Amino acid sequence: MNILIDKSSMIPIHQQLYQQISDRILSGLMKEGERLPSIRSMSESLTLSPMTIVKVYQQLEDHGLIERAHGKGTFVKRKDLLKNTQKDDLSNPYQWQISISDYLSRSRFRYNPSLSAGYSGYNLSIASLNHQLLPTKRILKEAYSLLEKNLDSLGKYGPVQGDLSFRETAAQYLKNKGIVTSAQNILVTSGAQQGISLIAHTFVGPGDIVIMEAPTYPGAIDIFKSRGATILTVPVDTEGMRTDLLLSLCDKYSPKLIYTIPRFHNPTGYSMSQRRKIELLAIAHHNNCMIIEDDPWSEITYSTIKAKPLKSMDTLGHIIYLKSFSKIIGPGYRVCAMVAEGSILDRLIAAKANLDSGAPLLTQKAIIPFLESNAMVQYLRQLNLTLSYRRDKMIKVLKANAPTGVTWTIPEGGVVIWVTLPKHFDIDSLFYRSVADHNISFLPGTVCYANEPEFNHLRLCFSYLDEDELEICILSLCRLIRDMMEHQGNHSPLPMI
Amino acid sequence: MNILIDKSSMIPIHQQLYQQISDRILSGLMKEGERLPSIRSMSESLTLSPMTIVKVYQQLEDHGLIERAHGKGTFVKRKDLLKNTQKDDLSNPYQWQISISDYLSRSRFRYNPSLSAGYSGYNLSIASLNHQLLPTKRILKEAYSLLEKNLDSLGKYGPVQGDLSFRETAAQYLKNKGIVTSAQNILVTSGAQQGISLIAHTFVGPGDIVIMEAPTYPGAIDIFKSRGATILTVPVDTEGMRTDLLLSLCDKYSPKLIYTIPRFHNPTGYSMSQRRKIELLAIAHHNNCMIIEDDPWSEITYSTIKAKPLKSMDTLGHIIYLKSFSKIIGPGYRVCAMVAEGSILDRLIAAKANLDSGAPLLTQKAIIPFLESNAMVQYLRQLNLTLSYRRDKMIKVLKANAPTGVTWTIPEGGVVIWVTLPKHFDIDSLFYRSVADHNISFLPGTVCYANEPEFNHLRLCFSYLDEDELEICILSLCRLIRDMMEHQGNHSPLPMI
Repeated sequence: MNILIDKSSMIPIHQQLYQQISDRILSGLMKEGERLPSIRSMSESLTLSPMTIVKVYQQLEDHGLIERAHGKGTFVKRKDLLKNTQKDDLSNPYQWQISISDYLSRSRFRYNPSLSAGYSGYNLSIASLNHQLLPTKRILKEAYSLLEKNLDSLGKYGPVQGDLSFRETAAQYLKNKGIVTSAQNILVTSGAQQGISLIAHTFVGPGDIVIMEAPTYPGAIDIFKSRGATILTVPVDTEGMRTDLLLSLCDKYSPKLIYTIPRFHNPTGYSMSQRRKIELLAIAHHNNCMIIEDDPWSEITYSTIKAKPLKSMDTLGHIIYLKSFSKIIGPGYRVCAMVAEGSILDRLIAAKANLDSGAPLLTQKAIIPFLESNAMVQYLRQLNLTLSYRRDKMIKVLKANAPTGVTWTIPEGGVVIWVTLPKHFDIDSLFYRSVADHNISFLPGTVCYANEPEFNHLRLCFSYLDEDELEICILSLCRLIRDMMEHQGNHSPLPMI
Repeated sequence: MNILIDKSSMIPIHQQLYQQISDRILSGLMKEGERLPSIRSMSESLTLSPMTIVKVYQQLEDHGLIERAHGKGTFVKRKDLLKNTQKDDLSNPYQWQISISDYLSRSRFRYNPSLSAGYSGYNLSIASLNHQLLPTKRILKEAYSLLEKNLDSLGKYGPVQGDLSFRETAAQYLKNKGIVTSAQNILVTSGAQQGISLIAHTFVGPGDIVIMEAPTYPGAIDIFKSRGATILTVPVDTEGMRTDLLLSLCDKYSPKLIYTIPRFHNPTGYSMSQRRKIELLAIAHHNNCMIIEDDPWSEITYSTIKAKPLKSMDTLGHIIYLKSFSKIIGPGYRVCAMVAEGSILDRLIAAKANLDSGAPLLTQKAIIPFLESNAMVQYLRQLNLTLSYRRDKMIKVLKANAPTGVTWTIPEGGVVIWVTLPKHFDIDSLFYRSVADHNISFLPGTVCYANEPEFNHLRLCFSYLDEDELEICILSLCRLIRDMMEHQGNHSPLPMI
């Protein structure tokens, strides 16, 4: 266990320690039955007072994550309600492996089957298009005609930076979105997730300050936390990231990187105003800091207003722009175009060479014909129409059935709605009951906060289920929320698993 | 610039510092004209004596990597002979980016176009099959028939661990190689490069000790160096890694990880004997350490002796086995099956979730039909026949033309020959003249050593060029070597670029 305590951080030390140990237990990296270091050895190795350790262990015990066995030590022992996790066999031959320390700190998702794409119930948690909406057949057919004429092209190692023809296609595609770039400034990554991870591995390490929106995309939180970064958060309102608060943070601290989703923000759906965009760029410039602009789904829009990406305004190479194609043409290809310039780009390409020698040629070449075709334009038009009906349906059912005190965003694009329940509502209990009693999974808002979470939000995705299924789910959820609001206080908070 | 000095390392501090700065300059991460920190600031930030810094800067200057401008400071200034590198425009708008520190330390390959797959001359450097040898047409055709019947399967997010049907296919494939495993112990990565990188990011950090063979696969060296590991090396002889020397290293130091290529070792072609395999496993067991077994091309064999992988003997989960398919069916898919067990596997899957959420479904599904077919067996038989002719041709021409004092290995498998020149020969000068005057690129042996390189080896690949081209190249190379041996001393050593 490599615990990193940043004594210069504004986050209290006991909180940093609690966070890191609980992250490891909740995400399953520390196993049931695993022994924690003694108070003395933990205090010595971290040069912290023993009382701090005692306090944190007590807190972990109070929250049902560890248990003290008198005279034997302190062990991971979770009081979860979902008992379907596999027990480790303590007599297993791989027991020695527990002594191998690692550099992971948080990777929450994989361990919760109800939040995965493979969830068998009603899935409102995964922000992905249903496969029935996707142009897979057309993509494959066109890919095959292209590739069977160019067999040699598949038989060679492609450039680390990505296939040249794909990068040219991507540059043209981005030009249509207002970003003037060229193939030589594009680096192809395996989805936006790898893009963010590549940036973090190249530029972010222990003690570096990363600014994220609160709430934000949980996959990005996991990455920066696993690099040992100190994460500061800035709230989001209807105009996007609160640049006034960002400015005052930057007065005190020197952030190295700002991560933002300016268009149809995940999970709130808000878009950054033009004024805020200008301020954000000015702040980055003044502080010599990088910005990651994650643009998962700006093509999915229900509005006639066309907004250009932040990157279109970037003349000094502050922004690393990520255009993943997974959310718009399907997740089976894992292709993302990253746009960057100068030595930042050079260093990212060098890191990509170490990481995996470059993206597979097959996936890049496979989507070229479709991206270049007129069929893509028609497909997006039809997709937006279909999704706008689903969004409207979800909102209509919410409006008619949600108890007083429940509010939600009405996104102008993207595939999720952010629902806010009355303060002091416990979303994790709702999640548990929703999955256990109704087979409905959603994203508990708690996982979208890098630091102190708010417990009264949930994210609902409307692109995976059809209109009838959406109606059934929202009706059930509204009944469940009403029921829990009426019996508030009867449910003790449960740890999120 | 994040320089990591490990004061407890057995590698002298000045050498660690020289290595890290020169790696960055040679790989282009530090740009021409970039200013180095002053002696004083470097000595303060690293808490080293100023004299150590002076000594290292002097050495860098002697080797033509930096230049001191009186009263102005010390700057990167390379005295390279190849002048075709792009000069940075110092008035460029991205100049501010140089102030952004990073966590890279070495990524040498991308910056040398003569060592890349895109090299336009005679390529003896890239260890890859020529595209004309590959079954690309058949793979694509079978992939298309499979996929058009299963469109939905491509439209969903696959498991982070990899597509289940691919993992089942891989488990069966590995069973035929003697490894008894199942889909649940396989993690699919984007090539072996990502496999090694994933392991390094999960388990290796600054100060951790990694043991590598000397020489070894350069891509793996880059990965461990970029994690800040202390690398110790063990020589290879005709029986593979010298386990006697490994044992005495392990008596002194506690390695966390051993990286080995036991079958048809890259670059020497040697295979590990059964006796050494048993010893290696016993040493790993005794020291609680992990082994990466990289198996790029054991299917390519010219011998009737069948040896099982090391992994087939591993009952305690010490070995993380990597079977990349890039070297045997082509590099366009980037699919590698990693086999591991227990908490090591769990943690690697968690890290993979952060890294890129899982390998693309398209590439995994595309190669299933071919891997399962009888055509794969026939293809390998034909491939081995073709390659054995090429190997024999290369050796025949070497035998007839190489000057006295030049020796080479005769590999029983794989696609490379390791050539040894007389001691004190300067391989980097040979490389420069070979590329510049004869359009022939090979791999200079120097890049295959993690620590002190030997300067008198080169690696020649015989799977990329046809027999006639191989003959032309070997004839030219032999003439050039003879010429340089006769005029030895007239060429001053040049920095490898």
